[in-house]
Amino acid sequence: MNMKEFLGNIRPVNTEFYKLAQQRLDNLTKPLGSLGRLEEFARKLVAIYKDEMPEIPKKVVFTFAGDHGVAEEGVSAFPQEVTAQMVFNFLNGGAGINVLARHAGADVVVIDIGVNFAFDDLKGLVKRKVVYGTKNIARGPAMTPAEAVRCIEVGRELAHEYADKGYRLFATGEMGIANTTPSSAIAAVITGRSVSGVTGKGTGIGNIAFNNKVRVITEAISVNRPDPRDGLDVLAKIGGAEIGGITGLCLGAAEKGIPVVIDGLISTAGALIAYTLNPDVADYLFAAHQSVEKGHQAMLAHMKLRPILNLDLRLGEGTGAALAMTVIDAGLKIYREMATFSEAEISN
Amino acid sequence: MNMKEFLGNIRPVNTEFYKLAQQRLDNLTKPLGSLGRLEEFARKLVAIYKDEMPEIPKKVVFTFAGDHGVAEEGVSAFPQEVTAQMVFNFLNGGAGINVLARHAGADVVVIDIGVNFAFDDLKGLVKRKVVYGTKNIARGPAMTPAEAVRCIEVGRELAHEYADKGYRLFATGEMGIANTTPSSAIAAVITGRSVSGVTGKGTGIGNIAFNNKVRVITEAISVNRPDPRDGLDVLAKIGGAEIGGITGLCLGAAEKGIPVVIDGLISTAGALIAYTLNPDVADYLFAAHQSVEKGHQAMLAHMKLRPILNLDLRLGEGTGAALAMTVIDAGLKIYREMATFSEAEISN
Repeated sequence: MNMKEFLGNIRPVNTEFYKLAQQRLDNLTKPLGSLGRLEEFARKLVAIYKDEMPEIPKKVVFTFAGDHGVAEEGVSAFPQEVTAQMVFNFLNGGAGINVLARHAGADVVVIDIGVNFAFDDLKGLVKRKVVYGTKNIARGPAMTPAEAVRCIEVGRELAHEYADKGYRLFATGEMGIANTTPSSAIAAVITGRSVSGVTGKGTGIGNIAFNNKVRVITEAISVNRPDPRDGLDVLAKIGGAEIGGITGLCLGAAEKGIPVVIDGLISTAGALIAYTLNPDVADYLFAAHQSVEKGHQAMLAHMKLRPILNLDLRLGEGTGAALAMTVIDAGLKIYREMATFSEAEISN
Repeated sequence: MNMKEFLGNIRPVNTEFYKLAQQRLDNLTKPLGSLGRLEEFARKLVAIYKDEMPEIPKKVVFTFAGDHGVAEEGVSAFPQEVTAQMVFNFLNGGAGINVLARHAGADVVVIDIGVNFAFDDLKGLVKRKVVYGTKNIARGPAMTPAEAVRCIEVGRELAHEYADKGYRLFATGEMGIANTTPSSAIAAVITGRSVSGVTGKGTGIGNIAFNNKVRVITEAISVNRPDPRDGLDVLAKIGGAEIGGITGLCLGAAEKGIPVVIDGLISTAGALIAYTLNPDVADYLFAAHQSVEKGHQAMLAHMKLRPILNLDLRLGEGTGAALAMTVIDAGLKIYREMATFSEAEISN
């Protein structure tokens, strides 16, 4: 993969399509603008697809799993083996993401990109392991630069593969015990906010553990000194394998002209790294929801993305993104299926 | 209908069911509370249905249509005949509510409860006309007390009929040119806020028209002097037929133990009147979304309801409620379909 060439393939969307879409929206049987953000979603889809009357026949959620050496610092309420156990739960269809993806009419693709466990060949598991967990970022880099590039490649390859299979809407998700720690570190470095201003309580830690988490993230940044203008450097030094997979997925989707619904804190950290590599990627992103995690808001603001839902979610896996897919779908249906004033013979 | 007896049938939900539901939620394969408001929706459904493992086989949106004499004061951007034209659009399946109800898997029931137009028998139209439009509230009462009671009866009868047909989730919607004017008047009277603090720009009026609308509402209140503690008096003097239908639907649903998703400003005005008649009705209500209309927030706060969506919607018809149904559904699916920690053999 020639990174420079690949990043150069991503183009901003053609804003003429926003106007075309708005013309149709303004002729539908409703007061101007009265469907609010549903109209915004329709416009954005039209522009991304470069298609005045797009359809979404197939949707998919990519749930990337990876482990984190920093778990040994006691930053999570759960032990590391839960990452692999949850992969089995995904494959068995019992996790939150399985339920919400079914609800959204989306498939779930589970990718082992960095779990610290040797999986057998398992039905439904995409095996693209780059590392057996990252190294502890409080002591040194998470990965080598080559491993970070490989994570992005994995995500990009999946984006291309599923675009070619006819999937037209992607969502990102992840599983990785301790992964709110690298995500908050990425948020602090790239947005320039303070560590305590972007650190949350993850899946449920108390105050003492929270202070420890702030200390660990502060150490990770001072030990590694990642360059905020260099997304690849940030990813390798304080990132994670699943985060890199999401970065690659966002970039590959933008290359292919496919919209991506990004989930909460961790997915947004992956998208933010993509954004530092090429800010035009934001044209292709939908922010699924406002997570309870503080760093999330900072990252969305940095990319000028406005979340669709605000339901106090903090599960990850892609759950918020799957749910947001149903709302985006609704925006497209309004656009496609409502009658115009002239069709309905209504006084406009 | 004996109003007192009927209102006495409504009971607060048994909060023991919240605890029962939370026990199951806490055993599902996710960190405690991490599905946020989806968990709240599941708990609420369990308590309303008094059923530890409820199902929602059928859903329905009730779209009540009525006209408003106050339209002659120039408070709306659209002429009155649009109410009847939109009824035809609903019956032909081309309106926003048709699209979003299909999206939610819900049926749409269109009720003429007060349109100023004599409809023939039309496939799909429920004819329960109480008035040919209300009278101009800036000059006197909208309806007689008997007409107001009849509107509530119509809504209640529909609630009972559809509960008996096996529908398990209701949503409210409405169509009525100028109906944000009585709705804002109701909001001001019952919440005690200032008229300008609860008046919005409806479907799209400018500043001069806005000032006129505030004047009209202020006059309507001073001419009619509705008693804020008497919902029936408020409905008759400054309400509307479709608003009364929604009041009755909320009350009848609560009697039957069926949850109701209330839409935006107008639906919430109807629900607020129900709330003044018996505040226990709020246990059965879901607030679909935060409308752009200012009075909406005041009314939801009065009933301690927190909106599910915030998508800048201001169309009405039940569109926000239909969309919120899909999110409520997602909450129930999580509850029913996710694996428990022991089923998935995950370290808890």
